[in-house]
Amino acid sequence: FAGSVKAKGTQWTRGGMGNVRVSGVRLSSVIRKLGVHIGSGARFLTAEGKDAPLPGKEDFEHSLPLDEAIEHSVLATRINGQPIPAVHGGPVRLMTPGFYGTMHIKWVSRLRFENGETDNYNQIPRYRVPRNQLQPGKPIKYTFANSTACWRMKTKCVVLAPEPDAAVAADKPFTIRGVAFNDGSTRIDSVQLSTDRGQTWSRVRLEVPHSRFAWYRWSATVSLPAGKRELWARTVDALGRTQPLDGSIHWNPSGYEWNGVEKIAVTVG
Amino acid sequence: FAGSVKAKGTQWTRGGMGNVRVSGVRLSSVIRKLGVHIGSGARFLTAEGKDAPLPGKEDFEHSLPLDEAIEHSVLATRINGQPIPAVHGGPVRLMTPGFYGTMHIKWVSRLRFENGETDNYNQIPRYRVPRNQLQPGKPIKYTFANSTACWRMKTKCVVLAPEPDAAVAADKPFTIRGVAFNDGSTRIDSVQLSTDRGQTWSRVRLEVPHSRFAWYRWSATVSLPAGKRELWARTVDALGRTQPLDGSIHWNPSGYEWNGVEKIAVTVG
Repeated sequence: FAGSVKAKGTQWTRGGMGNVRVSGVRLSSVIRKLGVHIGSGARFLTAEGKDAPLPGKEDFEHSLPLDEAIEHSVLATRINGQPIPAVHGGPVRLMTPGFYGTMHIKWVSRLRFENGETDNYNQIPRYRVPRNQLQPGKPIKYTFANSTACWRMKTKCVVLAPEPDAAVAADKPFTIRGVAFNDGSTRIDSVQLSTDRGQTWSRVRLEVPHSRFAWYRWSATVSLPAGKRELWARTVDALGRTQPLDGSIHWNPSGYEWNGVEKIAVTVG
Repeated sequence: FAGSVKAKGTQWTRGGMGNVRVSGVRLSSVIRKLGVHIGSGARFLTAEGKDAPLPGKEDFEHSLPLDEAIEHSVLATRINGQPIPAVHGGPVRLMTPGFYGTMHIKWVSRLRFENGETDNYNQIPRYRVPRNQLQPGKPIKYTFANSTACWRMKTKCVVLAPEPDAAVAADKPFTIRGVAFNDGSTRIDSVQLSTDRGQTWSRVRLEVPHSRFAWYRWSATVSLPAGKRELWARTVDALGRTQPLDGSIHWNPSGYEWNGVEKIAVTVG
């Protein structure tokens, strides 16, 4: 969102993302095995980690919607076949595919099944997005009613090559490649590419992964005449969710959940 | 949804829609003028009409989200400058732009400001859609938790010409025209047309209306080689909401809220 009004906190520029294979024990199995009784009013799973809070701050915790946590969460002990390094939350990290990274609780030490979301400052006001549009730069006081936690990942794609501001040869085929993903609740239907700033779009080659939570890798080969050009890429999923042409329509003070159409400037010549 | 599993009730085939100019008195003005005290817990406006119920049935009523009703609803007395005919709900109809037709209460006679949605059978189980995907044909018992009322219109477009199964001349320009709309919460960004079953899409000419709740008229001129062809049209709005390629992903027993990509078969020759 930095092109609109600068966000607070760490400047993630184009963001951070990963695509890993996780193994461990399903949360649902642990609940069954231990005979955990979950109260009938419980709607959220709140997870705490073993780390100590920053001085003067509350200890980090997050709440997840209970139904989805029971269906999808894993008490993960390995990523890509290796024990999870401590810096990434090992020995045990609560991972919920389809959810944003902040929701994967590191060094998980305690799980609570509760009627409401925690009011820990990492659940509110941090790591939230407004339910309705904000004017970029305008402050908002988050409440549980006017905002939601950063849970399910928005439908989006990323261009991995060429890099922004790369130079490519004129009138010669070159390959654009990237990945696409959503919250895993439905499949990605297509990724479309435009080299004329949205006037026309073409479907790219798409590799359908084995897991619906994994990246869809995609590529397209184009040749362009000399000049300053932009490569625009947009994902559409089977539920009809796509990326706004101007991502700043979802502006929020911390710059969360950006999913605007990916726009990469290149110099062709 | 008839191409998937047939819906219950009146068969609306491609649906019914209208685009009218409404005048009357804003609900918010009436509330202010009468000094209506709305309880702090009120979340819904429930509207009743003067008509008598069908034998053995409850009288028709609907609930609307209170914030949106106060912001947008009108106690309408005229459409397109003329008094509203009784058959269309005159003398006074509660109209809320951006909402589906069933929610515009005819012959409005009483308004209630309440904490919960009415459990009138026209609010539940009728005129609802599931929150999560259903398997087409699979029954569902609607609850307030697993479904929502048919309130805000989904982003979609309709092809008005040519008509389905029309014949058009080969290799000669002809015009495709239609309309697009959404719930009015944001503008329509583009309507895109594909004549190759979704491989490539081109932005069409779009007329931006004066009201954000009105139809966006659009047109495109194409010429096609002889053969059986399909014209596909898809709307994208500024929030990144579009139409699913296969609309039956939103299947529901009564066939409400269809917004699949519009697909018109034509014979070119």
